[in-house]
Amino acid sequence: MQQKQLSRVLIAGATHGNELIGAFLIHKFERSPHLITRSSFETQTLLVNPKALAARVRYIDTDLNRSFNRPCPAHELTAYEDLRAREIEQVFGPQGKAPVDVILDLHSTTSNMGLTLIIDRDDTFLLQLAAYLSAMDSSIRVYHSAHSGRGHDSLRSLARFGLGIEVGAIAQGILLADLFFRTEALIYSILDYLNQVNQGEPPVIDQPLTLYRYIRAIDYPRDPSGEIQAMIHPQLQFQDYQPLQCGDPMFLSFDGSIIPYQEPSTVYPIFINEAAYYEKGIAMCLTEKQEMGVGELGK
Amino acid sequence: MQQKQLSRVLIAGATHGNELIGAFLIHKFERSPHLITRSSFETQTLLVNPKALAARVRYIDTDLNRSFNRPCPAHELTAYEDLRAREIEQVFGPQGKAPVDVILDLHSTTSNMGLTLIIDRDDTFLLQLAAYLSAMDSSIRVYHSAHSGRGHDSLRSLARFGLGIEVGAIAQGILLADLFFRTEALIYSILDYLNQVNQGEPPVIDQPLTLYRYIRAIDYPRDPSGEIQAMIHPQLQFQDYQPLQCGDPMFLSFDGSIIPYQEPSTVYPIFINEAAYYEKGIAMCLTEKQEMGVGELGK
Repeated sequence: MQQKQLSRVLIAGATHGNELIGAFLIHKFERSPHLITRSSFETQTLLVNPKALAARVRYIDTDLNRSFNRPCPAHELTAYEDLRAREIEQVFGPQGKAPVDVILDLHSTTSNMGLTLIIDRDDTFLLQLAAYLSAMDSSIRVYHSAHSGRGHDSLRSLARFGLGIEVGAIAQGILLADLFFRTEALIYSILDYLNQVNQGEPPVIDQPLTLYRYIRAIDYPRDPSGEIQAMIHPQLQFQDYQPLQCGDPMFLSFDGSIIPYQEPSTVYPIFINEAAYYEKGIAMCLTEKQEMGVGELGK
Repeated sequence: MQQKQLSRVLIAGATHGNELIGAFLIHKFERSPHLITRSSFETQTLLVNPKALAARVRYIDTDLNRSFNRPCPAHELTAYEDLRAREIEQVFGPQGKAPVDVILDLHSTTSNMGLTLIIDRDDTFLLQLAAYLSAMDSSIRVYHSAHSGRGHDSLRSLARFGLGIEVGAIAQGILLADLFFRTEALIYSILDYLNQVNQGEPPVIDQPLTLYRYIRAIDYPRDPSGEIQAMIHPQLQFQDYQPLQCGDPMFLSFDGSIIPYQEPSTVYPIFINEAAYYEKGIAMCLTEKQEMGVGELGK
């Protein structure tokens, strides 16, 4: 690696207060810090939205993972999450008291996204990390959020290297033991990788990376008052990362009419039927699938 | 049937505002009332907790499905749900303006309970209805809530014949098309049955009824501060209505220790890992399985 050493890594959970796997992993790491201790960097933990976690809701006033890097002065911020974001920036952000190099932000979803790594830009270091992890475990998917917005307004955008970890399918407000332990193992693999890189011994990656790159979000069909008129079609439900082709069923209306996908290009929907996205007008995000050799990056 | 005719049936949804299948079925029935019209009785619909539905939360102040039949005077009620319960009682309750004979209350759960009918007492009419429906569709389960409390504090307790319909597994805040249409079909079967009974032609039931009768609720293992110490074991997760025997894994702690079920009697857990029950101190409800010939009832 031609970058400077990584000094501080932040593992963050409960950015959304009803996503419990991240929250309870942070509890575990805080009780047993040796689990996340590595020789070449300092690892810190953060319960990002403790009020929302206590109330078991996504947020109190507004979505915290859309609240970072707001340009307005502090006295204009009134929402709990806007104030909390500013507080976190002042500690962990680039101009904060203890800036971090890497942020791993732990999320979960009602969509069937398995273990997904989220990166927000074409960064050689992050792409190589993602390629390594998905080569080690072929069930791991890599999503590039591109121009979805998370590259600048999310918690992870505070660090030089931000990585979202999104696991599902899991209902809001519950724990699932298998996803809990799979997420935990993934975190250890990431910390081990970072440690090896810092020690000048980055693992060799000999497989191309499969990347799912955000194209755009699709809303539910709605009536003029804004009310939803259809549901995800059962053939598409839980089929995140599977190809969707022209003519395939996409939605099913409440009286049973099928609404197909009608564009010529094959896409790979993700975040299908994510509970928190109903209010955001998102039924799914369409992605395109891309294979890339990470040895070629940055050249 | 030796009972008097059924005059009014109420179909209720969104008693909990983040259980969307019921809410959107009510929307559908209100747009197309002919779907629930039957010749021998009047069918009404009710969105039970519209404020919680708008906010996509279970409740605003307190659980509405525990708020009925409160003995205190109206001026002592302050919680939104307590006031709403009183309002509903004054219309549909036994002393209300338009009392109903039957209430079908539509719920959903993060537990894998398929299509479940909930009855609250050993009533011949309800048991025969349940036996008929489960004979028609063997995937339908029948749960007797016994002394869990729902027999007196739930919405459905207002009617002579109250029936809960609980469907899952589904995350809070989402719709699933297959469960939506299966729930809808079940409602039509119930309305048809009631109509046949009113017309003096009750369907013949020639199979015994399998009933899962509430024994008690089991909480998660907790530390002295009340924090959860273990998750549902993966072998038990999503296994609602399956036998649990002495020695079978029940919970899995965050460090991987198995906590088994340790009692001699075989039980049938339901409501396993229901999101809304974390705050109630319920990890699952244990039931006992009972076979009964409904022709023998009431003798």
